[in-house]
Amino acid sequence: MGRMSWLDDITWDERGLLPVIAQEVSSGDVLMFAWMNREALAKTAETGEAVYWSRSRQRLWHKGEESGNIQKVREMRLDCDRDVLLLKVDQLGHDPSIACHTGRHSCFFQRHDGEGWHAVDPVLADPERIYK
Amino acid sequence: MGRMSWLDDITWDERGLLPVIAQEVSSGDVLMFAWMNREALAKTAETGEAVYWSRSRQRLWHKGEESGNIQKVREMRLDCDRDVLLLKVDQLGHDPSIACHTGRHSCFFQRHDGEGWHAVDPVLADPERIYK
Repeated sequence: MGRMSWLDDITWDERGLLPVIAQEVSSGDVLMFAWMNREALAKTAETGEAVYWSRSRQRLWHKGEESGNIQKVREMRLDCDRDVLLLKVDQLGHDPSIACHTGRHSCFFQRHDGEGWHAVDPVLADPERIYK
Repeated sequence: MGRMSWLDDITWDERGLLPVIAQEVSSGDVLMFAWMNREALAKTAETGEAVYWSRSRQRLWHKGEESGNIQKVREMRLDCDRDVLLLKVDQLGHDPSIACHTGRHSCFFQRHDGEGWHAVDPVLADPERIYK
């Protein structure tokens, strides 16, 4: 009865996608931004691990499938317009945690200083070793 | 000489827009998600207050222009792909702070419980009184 009907409560965009913000529970840090389609969100809910839709590769992307940097989902929240998802996660795989493919903690590592963007967060692991 | 050239470092989407995540500095809470075009981001940087692009109204939207719930920008961060902005803000206008047009603290007030979405955060002020 109403199996997965909560997926129908979401306002998917014209491409059938939903913007997703991943936030780390322990630190409160915003780790990354990505997209899900219906199948990705269903799999995320089923498995309890973040599964996104890769727009560049046009396929499901189980976050951490190559790097080991899996995201365990602790909570999912939908916004007022039902068209954006906030995923509260435990970021596994490395300590301190790494969400970004550059080997940094968060994808949001470039800070604006009034004139330009500057990388201000350290690389915690060599991406060449993360993606073998 | 390169005035606002940092705007050119951004990868704008096919509509000329950039997804923006607003996060409250004091609480770490993700308050809302919105979009900016080039002009909105230039104005945000100039004024130090969040200015978004309203897709529904097709015009610049100075957050808080009606409600008084202005967002003071403390920091701007760009992600690894240079196509998503994280805005760290002080959410003004009400105590406790209100970012959502429903009168709630955050737009992400609907929590998934495995079967559906449920509003779990309180309405802090009557929207009818916020938008007179």
